Order: sequence, then C-alpha cells, then structure tokens
Amino acid sequence: MNMKTFALVLSALTITSACTKHETEVSKQIIALEKAAMDRWSHGDVYGFLELSAEDVVYFDPMLEKRLDGLKKLTELYKPLQGKINVSKYDMIDPKVQAVENMAVLTYNFKSYEGEHVYQWNCTEVFRKEKDNQWKIIQTHWSFTKPELK
Amino acid sequence: MNMKTFALVLSALTITSACTKHETEVSKQIIALEKAAMDRWSHGDVYGFLELSAEDVVYFDPMLEKRLDGLKKLTELYKPLQGKINVSKYDMIDPKVQAVENMAVLTYNFKSYEGEHVYQWNCTEVFRKEKDNQWKIIQTHWSFTKPELK
Repeated sequence: MNMKTFALVLSALTITSACTKHETEVSKQIIALEKAAMDRWSHGDVYGFLELSAEDVVYFDPMLEKRLDGLKKLTELYKPLQGKINVSKYDMIDPKVQAVENMAVLTYNFKSYEGEHVYQWNCTEVFRKEKDNQWKIIQTHWSFTKPELK
Repeated sequence: MNMKTFALVLSALTITSACTKHETEVSKQIIALEKAAMDRWSHGDVYGFLELSAEDVVYFDPMLEKRLDGLKKLTELYKPLQGKINVSKYDMIDPKVQAVENMAVLTYNFKSYEGEHVYQWNCTEVFRKEKDNQWKIIQTHWSFTKPELK
C-alpha cells in the first residue's frame, strides 16, 4: 500500500468511525430522553412526553379514529390522564436508533405491567434536533403487538 | 425600517421560504414514491416496497410478534405474498411529510378495499436520503386504526 492509498483508507476509516460515533452518541441521548419521559408517564405524569414533543408533533395510538396533529391536541388528549396512570413495571425491548444529523428514528417493542394486565406494544418515535440543539419528538406511533381481533 | 433591518428581514424571509420550498419539494417526492409502491402492491407486486426499502429497514405490522429488522427479513415476509394481493381501491388519507435535509417522515391514514372488506390503517414511513440521492424507507409501521379487540 502506498502513502496515497494509506491516506485514503485512513480518511475513509475516520469518516466511518465519525458516523458511527455520531449515531452511537445520538442513540444514547434519544433513548435516555425516551426513558426519562416513560418513567414520568409510568408514575402518572403525562408532561414528560408533552414537554419532549414539538409543536408540530403528529400522533397515532390504537384508541384514535385518525392521526392527531399538533401539540395542542396531544395535550388535550393526555391532560385528563394526569395522575391516573399506574404502570408498575415496563420493559423497553431492543430499542434501536437510526439517525442523520438533525433527525432520528427510535423503534422498540414495549411491555407494560398495569395491575394484573400485561400489554404489548410496538412503538416508533421520530425526533428532530431543534434550533436550540434539543431533540424533540415530531412523530409518535403506538400500536398493539399482534392484537387479537373480534 | 433602515436598510440594515430591511436586509435582515429579507434574509430571514429567504431562509423561511427556502425551508418551506425544500419541505414542499421533498413532500411531493416522498408521497409520489409511496403511491407508486402502493399501486404496485395493490396489484399484487410486493417488490415496489422492497425496492424502495434500505438494507437496514425496520418494520412493524399487526401480524408480527416483534419488530422485524433488515431488508432480508422483510423480503422473506413479503415474497410469499407476491401475486396474491388484490386491493380493488385504496385511499391515502391526509398524507403529511415532516422533513430535514436527509430524513423525512411520512404519516397517513389508509383505507384499503379488498373484496367486500374495508380495512383501516395507520401508517408511518421514515425515509432517508442515501449517498446516491435516492430516498429509501428505513422504518415502516403499519397498525390497525382503532381495532376492536377480543
């Protein structure tokens, strides 16, 4: 290998490692933000997720007839639940983050233990890096894992 | 308003309009890609979505026990359906794209008409702009809209 080739390989390796480092760094940040919001949620505090969501957030869950658009409507949906959620334990299963510079998608399976019930979910969160460098959720999609239909 | 303020306002307006133009442009592209893949799907061709998906695509649908990771596994899931889908009509309801430079999220509600059945879905697709400037799906989440559970 001559010096030019060596320099090219070194530069390629540096770029690859920089990308990986960026994704790993973002991945840690995003998962920590989600877990912090989920901890608050499981103790009945809906404002963890609301404070983490952007004004233009869009939202799906299996109780809604249609996609819900905007933080105002999400707040109206969540506010009546404040203090009424009691998740005794949860498992965030195999969280994965795919990221570019200013946007990242987090996906995971989820088990929540509420009283004697165990609920199984699929979850997709899309985060966008805002002008103040804070990551905010712009899309949430909750669905039941393999629901048994009537 | 003095000239300096005027120049600042003009520059701010240019940036805003550039962002909006970028999002509108990306929005058109993404929705066209999704519709083209959906047209092929509705005629029984699963390769529209497979060709539009990246190697590292992650995928949820309500028939799966867990998130599915990677194009290879998605191909194994879809291949047996080739030639067996017959969607007579579909409605992509209120598609919305939120985008940064190299990533975009598309969300919509969906109605598919298959024989005498009408199915209602929630859908989230995340697209990433690849090195060749092509947009590829890196995350798909299909779920039933307000399923009636047993």
